[in-house]
Amino acid sequence: MLDKSIYNVHALKPIIHNITNYVTVNDCANVLLACGASPIMADDALEVAEITRLCQGLNINIGTLNQRTVESMLIAGQEANKLQHPVILDPVGAGASKFRTQTALQLLKEVQFTVIKGNISEIKALANASTSTQGVDANVADQVTEENLATTISFAKNFAKQTKAIIVISGAIDLVADEKQAYAIYNGHPLMAKVTGTGCQLSALIAAFVSANPEAILNATACAVIAMGIAGERAYTRLESLAGNASYRNYIIDAIYNLTDAELIKGAKYELY
Amino acid sequence: MLDKSIYNVHALKPIIHNITNYVTVNDCANVLLACGASPIMADDALEVAEITRLCQGLNINIGTLNQRTVESMLIAGQEANKLQHPVILDPVGAGASKFRTQTALQLLKEVQFTVIKGNISEIKALANASTSTQGVDANVADQVTEENLATTISFAKNFAKQTKAIIVISGAIDLVADEKQAYAIYNGHPLMAKVTGTGCQLSALIAAFVSANPEAILNATACAVIAMGIAGERAYTRLESLAGNASYRNYIIDAIYNLTDAELIKGAKYELY
Amino acid sequence: MLDKSIYNVHALKPIIHNITNYVTVNDCANVLLACGASPIMADDALEVAEITRLCQGLNINIGTLNQRTVESMLIAGQEANKLQHPVILDPVGAGASKFRTQTALQLLKEVQFTVIKGNISEIKALANASTSTQGVDANVADQVTEENLATTISFAKNFAKQTKAIIVISGAIDLVADEKQAYAIYNGHPLMAKVTGTGCQLSALIAAFVSANPEAILNATACAVIAMGIAGERAYTRLESLAGNASYRNYIIDAIYNLTDAELIKGAKYELY
Repeated sequence: MLDKSIYNVHALKPIIHNITNYVTVNDCANVLLACGASPIMADDALEVAEITRLCQGLNINIGTLNQRTVESMLIAGQEANKLQHPVILDPVGAGASKFRTQTALQLLKEVQFTVIKGNISEIKALANASTSTQGVDANVADQVTEENLATTISFAKNFAKQTKAIIVISGAIDLVADEKQAYAIYNGHPLMAKVTGTGCQLSALIAAFVSANPEAILNATACAVIAMGIAGERAYTRLESLAGNASYRNYIIDAIYNLTDAELIKGAKYELY
Repeated sequence: MLDKSIYNVHALKPIIHNITNYVTVNDCANVLLACGASPIMADDALEVAEITRLCQGLNINIGTLNQRTVESMLIAGQEANKLQHPVILDPVGAGASKFRTQTALQLLKEVQFTVIKGNISEIKALANASTSTQGVDANVADQVTEENLATTISFAKNFAKQTKAIIVISGAIDLVADEKQAYAIYNGHPLMAKVTGTGCQLSALIAAFVSANPEAILNATACAVIAMGIAGERAYTRLESLAGNASYRNYIIDAIYNLTDAELIKGAKYELY
Repeated sequence: MLDKSIYNVHALKPIIHNITNYVTVNDCANVLLACGASPIMADDALEVAEITRLCQGLNINIGTLNQRTVESMLIAGQEANKLQHPVILDPVGAGASKFRTQTALQLLKEVQFTVIKGNISEIKALANASTSTQGVDANVADQVTEENLATTISFAKNFAKQTKAIIVISGAIDLVADEKQAYAIYNGHPLMAKVTGTGCQLSALIAAFVSANPEAILNATACAVIAMGIAGERAYTRLESLAGNASYRNYIIDAIYNLTDAELIKGAKYELY
């Protein structure tokens, strides 16, 4: 855990280049602003290298992937590698179509990612070329539970070693692993699954936290995951009697806007393995 | 009317594949989550057939239509037809440009739709190759009123017969017709016209309701239309003194999130013709 | 200043054709509805001329620019020029990449704009072929302040003369200039910078105000800028203790929805130079 992960985002104000889907892009921009970072969205092959050079971090998300932007992702990823900027991959729907799986695999081959964040289905699809993904949610049979925690942590550490990236497996229990250590994080609220894009927002947050805390990327990633979880918890307590998932969506971003390092540290629920 | 239309969506959790516009896509995703369904958005020709196979229903919306996605709509629609999945068409802006009208007509020719939902201008454009559409709103002179109700119902039933689809004509009075029967639905609130995408959200809801209630598609469609209308009514009562259309947008989705079958049945205002 | 700038938007209900980015497009649509106008979003080269003919104004925004839509922007802009419709340019990120700068310059060459609205970096990039833009925010060193106000107003008037367009330079002090006169506007709130797309919304608002007040385009543009600023001020006073930038986003659009001409005139803070 870091004492000043949020402080550092506000102090350094990293600009994050996002090549992401058109479903949740507005929320990704607003959550980046909420945490103290700045968003730029640009996806045309003609400009992504230049845009990445203006930024401190790159967030690649393959939801609503299309053929036009695959090349842009590769160009931006390679440019960020040259500059030693952190690069985050959110392989949304990997396993759900050959196009997504193969694009994600190509990205893994041609770009060195700093963090790879998906649900268990997506991460398994990348690791095993599995095709069992149920849309963008993890298969129920494959959720991370206390019973399979040790096995899944071992899987995450191995995949981290193989990819030289931090692996984040999001779910009821979130795992954040490098090849040696893993956080099992218990923050969050089930209602977050009823808001589209909380996973995409998390990837954007990770990009901001890692860019602003480059000397402790495992811990910075864990802090971003915990921050998102605590925001979900705090937003939930704010719901009025007639509120639903749309109000909750706003309250989560509001909670990121208001979250302090002291609250993050106090609210964090995790084990380190 | 159905006793358990909402219950069935929550029980069956249909995954809905949306090929839709980038203006209102986030609201479509959140309203699907609100009603108990799951959204997937995917529009690249390389993956839409596979994505449709993972889903239980398909929602095609031609707002912000572009040449790249026309092929995707055709591929996904034909795949859904093979699988006997319900397919919804929202011909946004049909009549406003040749490109939209011709694409909608091509879709009608090559895909068997389960439900076609538009305002009176759009539906007339499809039926008559008319070009009188005023943007995405119905021409004032062509709104459905008590005076022209019988004529319009007859038109809707005829177009339902011709297309072998349920026809939904949205407006102050909503019509839901197959070739034999028509609901005239009086739920809703005029302020809904001040929120972009309430029509797009309705199409997504119809896809969810029809996918989860496949043995009663006319009634399921009517229930979705009524649900959206009641959500608009309930959301309106929640507006504080300084609230406007942005708060209303959130409250409508919140109201879908909270709506029960009992409330739907109690609040429904309709006549069957 | 105009007595009835908002009244005229509500009375004339201009339809605004937007070719804009996918990050903030939903907010642009809702803010247009909030102020009494109607939005249409359409960006395919096959239909943009027809769509523009249905409308009363055109709003071109190059955020998330891609090669496909450059041609659409040119076609729509030239069609709007033929029809003598107002055309607004928001050169988002001009200066941040060659693609954006060159596209903006090409648009300036081939389309006569009525209003060009950007931050100081973007406007300078257009005026000077500068490449110092820091993402989509103005360089701190280049912000408009009381100290450099006279120089910046002179720059804006000159660029207005050169482009035959109203120039809007947004920032803590907003400038609205034609070649002879300039408004320095002091409305707004710093928190607006924490909401993605308030600038994009302003461009959409300007399109609506200018379309509905065609005989006083300098004053109509100033009124739109003041309206957005006052909305930011009023929205700020509505924030509860746990609110953040997501609630603020909604409250700004709500405030536009509720704003009257009397409130605009009373709340306006400006100097005319």
